[in-house]
Amino acid sequence: MSLKRVAILGSTGSIGTQALDVIARFPDRFRVVGLAAGRNVELLREQAQRFTCAIATSAQDGAAGLHRVAVESEPELVLAATDGAVAFDAVFAAVARGTDVAVANKELIVAAGELLMSAAGVSGARILPVDSEHSAIFQCLIGERHESVARILVTASGGPFLRASREEIENASIDSALAHPTWRMGRKNTVDSASLMNKGLEVIEASRLFAMAPQRIGVVIHPQSIAHAFVVFTDGSVKAQLCAPDMRVPIGYALGYPERLTWSPFGTGTDPLRLLGAKTEVEQLSYEYERPDLERFPCLRLAYQALDRGGTAPAVLSAANEIAVGAFLEGRLRFGEIPRVIERVMNEVEEGELSLESVRAADRRARARANEVLESRTAGTAR
Amino acid sequence: MSLKRVAILGSTGSIGTQALDVIARFPDRFRVVGLAAGRNVELLREQAQRFTCAIATSAQDGAAGLHRVAVESEPELVLAATDGAVAFDAVFAAVARGTDVAVANKELIVAAGELLMSAAGVSGARILPVDSEHSAIFQCLIGERHESVARILVTASGGPFLRASREEIENASIDSALAHPTWRMGRKNTVDSASLMNKGLEVIEASRLFAMAPQRIGVVIHPQSIAHAFVVFTDGSVKAQLCAPDMRVPIGYALGYPERLTWSPFGTGTDPLRLLGAKTEVEQLSYEYERPDLERFPCLRLAYQALDRGGTAPAVLSAANEIAVGAFLEGRLRFGEIPRVIERVMNEVEEGELSLESVRAADRRARARANEVLESRTAGTAR
Repeated sequence: MSLKRVAILGSTGSIGTQALDVIARFPDRFRVVGLAAGRNVELLREQAQRFTCAIATSAQDGAAGLHRVAVESEPELVLAATDGAVAFDAVFAAVARGTDVAVANKELIVAAGELLMSAAGVSGARILPVDSEHSAIFQCLIGERHESVARILVTASGGPFLRASREEIENASIDSALAHPTWRMGRKNTVDSASLMNKGLEVIEASRLFAMAPQRIGVVIHPQSIAHAFVVFTDGSVKAQLCAPDMRVPIGYALGYPERLTWSPFGTGTDPLRLLGAKTEVEQLSYEYERPDLERFPCLRLAYQALDRGGTAPAVLSAANEIAVGAFLEGRLRFGEIPRVIERVMNEVEEGELSLESVRAADRRARARANEVLESRTAGTAR
Repeated sequence: MSLKRVAILGSTGSIGTQALDVIARFPDRFRVVGLAAGRNVELLREQAQRFTCAIATSAQDGAAGLHRVAVESEPELVLAATDGAVAFDAVFAAVARGTDVAVANKELIVAAGELLMSAAGVSGARILPVDSEHSAIFQCLIGERHESVARILVTASGGPFLRASREEIENASIDSALAHPTWRMGRKNTVDSASLMNKGLEVIEASRLFAMAPQRIGVVIHPQSIAHAFVVFTDGSVKAQLCAPDMRVPIGYALGYPERLTWSPFGTGTDPLRLLGAKTEVEQLSYEYERPDLERFPCLRLAYQALDRGGTAPAVLSAANEIAVGAFLEGRLRFGEIPRVIERVMNEVEEGELSLESVRAADRRARARANEVLESRTAGTAR
């Protein structure tokens, strides 16, 4: 088995540290050749030491640092696990060289997914999803032909407001929005799970990663979060991927691809119910599936709208959402206003032709406009 | 798209007629080159006419007739859908020529599976499962490596006695044993579903088809019969195949392989819950999973025993079961006695080295011994 050279952009974040946890279990399989972090320089230094990694850069090294890690360290696989657009150039440079990229950076696919897939198509680089839902789809599609796929369904836990009324959602507190029933994530992503915007973004990602039209991608609420996605084939057969919610499984899948690692956070023992996600000894496992309610969760509808519009619209959606969620987390916006702010920005920011530059410009304009909308609301309306 | 030449052994049976139903939808994809039936000569003649098939043979043509259909018609795919051992020679002759075989003939895999897989390995013929469970496993394994598979789980509806007590099962009536909750099958197979012997036979088949040790194959009760099997990988990821219970889906998959047909008995529309098996408009779908109870369903335990013993033991299990189920359906044996008859025969019939001839001999001896056991019980015990 040859040692795979891995570079990690965002090594001190949630995905980065979990990736290093997986890599540490396979010293004869992976070699960490580059680490890039933001401001947590102390943890970065520890990581570089532990994995005897010569190239480690932080935010103070800027774009050049990211480029050193993604390109000059000569990795075979780059794990793109930063937030936002900071690593776009470094990732595109790696892809241009034909380097495989495992993508945990949602914006990279939401805002620039078409550009990324097209660049990968030219260079032969493989784009490997890290999100549990997209990893699930990817796994179900292995060995299948694109023309055999009728539909894709991503599952959603439904978040903390699955059974909440419209009014309760409108005025939901920060604490209640942060109380996610199954997954543990950062604050922004947890709020996105509560509004179902995370599913909306995932629908956009699925469309980009798997070249599927929006109307062929659906969402199913599945509160147990065991089945992560379904692929429906043209012959009526459906394939699903399941596992208990632990991000190290899809991360490990992307790291090891095309091989699967032999290690599981929850064992591969003989109890069939444990294998199917039961956390304790139980008599019976029950998986429920239901339709999402677009009335109570308008963010999901907005994401489909952005996908339909195409171009820079997904970038605008994502940026406006980030600003609105930030305002909510600062107590400056009601939960129910998040989609209204996004919708206004989407309707007001001009859309351009798709290019890496226009994506960045749309992102900037959307953020600026979202902040203006927030200020006008705070100034103009009694809250 | 080239026309695939298909021959069907057992064309007038349940699987044969459903296969022709699928084939009739794709006149530019399949050509029926041979049909073999048992005694339903009238239906056979109709089928031959409808599909303009020159070679059509019935039971009165004997082994030569089966050979003509499986070999001389020069098919690219043989669908083996007869019962018992009648078509073994014809199928092995086709496999020896490198012809792909879609297997719906359970005994062929249970009793002679190792021989079949080994012959296919030599000639390069593909063995395609038709059973919904094995088709599910096959579909989940596409594009995956054998060494990445940790376990296989086949699902069972649990049959009509899932919630019955030991006493109720012991004295179950013929009518109650024939009242299968989800699948519609022949009488013998329906009784096997009630005793869980069908799952036992499927565990043996899975072991043969996918080269898996018995302890790596499990059974999960899933009353809804939507998910047909799970494959658990070494990295903790699980893949499942699902579809509403309609045998035309796995039949169509085997016929079309490696392509998928574009046709579904239950549509591939946009309603996610319909896609996941809901037969009507519902708010929520619920899939349950639980462990099988080997105490109340000893047939499943016996099948694992036969698989552990290997050689001709599975042939003995299958033959003894057939005789015992026949006696039950004639009112000569209590339901609860079925496994006891099988166990006695398994313990008394000597096992031989594996060859097509020893399998046949074991089958004959097991049937004879089972009949003796039945007669001695009827003569000796008050029922």
